[in-house]
Amino acid sequence: MKRYNSKILENFIKNIFLKLNMSNKDALKVSKLIIQSDLYGVNTHGIFRLPNYVKRITEGGMNMNPNIKVIKERQSTALLDGDNGIGHIIMEKASKLAIKKAKKTGVAWVGVKNSNHAGAGATYAMMPLEKNMVGIYLAVGSANHLPPWGGIDMLLSTNPIAIAIPSQFKPPIVLDMATTNTSYGKVKVAASNNENMPIGWMQDEKGNPITNPKNADQGFLIPIGGPKGYGLALMIGILAGSLNGAAFGKNVIDFNKDFKTTTNTGHVLIALDIESFMPFEEFINEIDNVWNIMKSSRTMEGYSNIRLPGENRHFIFEKNTKEGIELNEDTINKLNQIAKSLKVQILN
Amino acid sequence: MKRYNSKILENFIKNIFLKLNMSNKDALKVSKLIIQSDLYGVNTHGIFRLPNYVKRITEGGMNMNPNIKVIKERQSTALLDGDNGIGHIIMEKASKLAIKKAKKTGVAWVGVKNSNHAGAGATYAMMPLEKNMVGIYLAVGSANHLPPWGGIDMLLSTNPIAIAIPSQFKPPIVLDMATTNTSYGKVKVAASNNENMPIGWMQDEKGNPITNPKNADQGFLIPIGGPKGYGLALMIGILAGSLNGAAFGKNVIDFNKDFKTTTNTGHVLIALDIESFMPFEEFINEIDNVWNIMKSSRTMEGYSNIRLPGENRHFIFEKNTKEGIELNEDTINKLNQIAKSLKVQILN
Repeated sequence: MKRYNSKILENFIKNIFLKLNMSNKDALKVSKLIIQSDLYGVNTHGIFRLPNYVKRITEGGMNMNPNIKVIKERQSTALLDGDNGIGHIIMEKASKLAIKKAKKTGVAWVGVKNSNHAGAGATYAMMPLEKNMVGIYLAVGSANHLPPWGGIDMLLSTNPIAIAIPSQFKPPIVLDMATTNTSYGKVKVAASNNENMPIGWMQDEKGNPITNPKNADQGFLIPIGGPKGYGLALMIGILAGSLNGAAFGKNVIDFNKDFKTTTNTGHVLIALDIESFMPFEEFINEIDNVWNIMKSSRTMEGYSNIRLPGENRHFIFEKNTKEGIELNEDTINKLNQIAKSLKVQILN
Repeated sequence: MKRYNSKILENFIKNIFLKLNMSNKDALKVSKLIIQSDLYGVNTHGIFRLPNYVKRITEGGMNMNPNIKVIKERQSTALLDGDNGIGHIIMEKASKLAIKKAKKTGVAWVGVKNSNHAGAGATYAMMPLEKNMVGIYLAVGSANHLPPWGGIDMLLSTNPIAIAIPSQFKPPIVLDMATTNTSYGKVKVAASNNENMPIGWMQDEKGNPITNPKNADQGFLIPIGGPKGYGLALMIGILAGSLNGAAFGKNVIDFNKDFKTTTNTGHVLIALDIESFMPFEEFINEIDNVWNIMKSSRTMEGYSNIRLPGENRHFIFEKNTKEGIELNEDTINKLNQIAKSLKVQILN
């Protein structure tokens, strides 16, 4: 394990994307958005994904200079066509548009099609916070690892939801979760770290638990609350996929196996202006109260304290900003292989 | 067990509310909205709740002639003050307003405060379907039965979410779920039926399962996916409660124990106009495809077929409409006690 300053990693990513013919402006943006996940400790969705992105780009499966367009628009809604660009750039645009519209009408729902993996959902759900808004992000996951409840054919992804709520003196409350007990990214990290998975993450076709992440191909993820998580994954898939004309169900290609076919990833970003309901200062003060009230609960045996969603990420962000982002040897090696092949400065 | 025609039950409820000084117009509406839950087989949220409603009304905890007002309004948002009326009437108004606004701008988010229990969330999530929209309902539950994850103080409710998606020839897809493995209503029905609860529904302060619903007071509900369900319950509570100036956390009074204090229940209704994203006909055809694709999955041992959210309710609706709504003896006795005390025609 080794820690790297975030600026060094951002620069590393930027140089790689520049070599792959991304514009300077976009490369700067994407590198920051990718590293933001790592700063918050979401190491499954940050620089760890770069080799995958690069492979897709070099094999022709992603457009380096997309013409991102609003193809349908009303006062409080829009549908964006991402032109097969990298998800980060498209979702940043979607967030900005949602914020702009919500400022005018109170709420906005922006759908996205023809996008790609965009990293951690919290990155985009948090964007409206700067403008005194709540942010909600939905997405169709980039590979199907979940069958409908009671089934064994993987027709659904871990379709995640992220919700971000601004606060006053406390960190914002940020929930960013797959609708399965774990994300497939965590399975990949477990495999990369040679660690076993707990029971409840995955099961095989007979319903037996899978604990070795190297056997992940023999089964599938388990939804939260059984049929309820299946229901949520399905609904998020319909709202972020079907409704946007994006891939859902059988149309979702596995972005870890097929690097050529357009993924047509769908996302949604909702921005909700707090002032539509109550004065902003009153609301954020109330959210600090919510923090204190939840923290006031006595704990169960085996738990030392109550955590709020996003609390850990907040403190990891402070630590990683100061001390740097930790990468394991496997990841560093993979990144440096790419750097060498593209003749870019490697990570030391 | 005995089956009653829905019209007979509607009339029964209407007569009771008329005796309690509700207007004829509202009594007609509420009785239909309550029985709609029973028609769909959601027997935990229908006429089963009437004794509770009546107790609250007679003890002065609910306003029979509320002045429901829009107290904040923008193009795509509104905040309704329900003036402590029964939730059904308030949420019907909220749904209508959301639909009207979404028709103009594409999406609307209507928050509600000073409301009360409104029955099943699906009732309101389904209202936008008639206008070619998606409906989403959020609410703060009417009693705290859930601690924050790792805690033992019940500061959260089962805060439910309902999402309804229109279809073409298939039944609509309707998810209506608590963010706990079960709703407290199901615990009460189990108690009323003298049935044991499965492991996973409730646990005590040491984390041991509770299976006898008569011991429900000794523990609390378990959230779906552990900390994820806690996170969802918290976020729904903030959006439907805090943001609307409605009760959340310590302010939630237990509507099964305290019948005098104003509950200040909060709800949210979101209406999303499908035509903002794609032609309606194309979308509902696609939803029928989603049905067929999910149904196409091979099943796991022990499962005979794949179900879509709302599939069961749809077929129960058809059966109950034809054959009547089934009530158990305990419920019939409780309802008839009320009828007798109010000098209203009893159920035979």
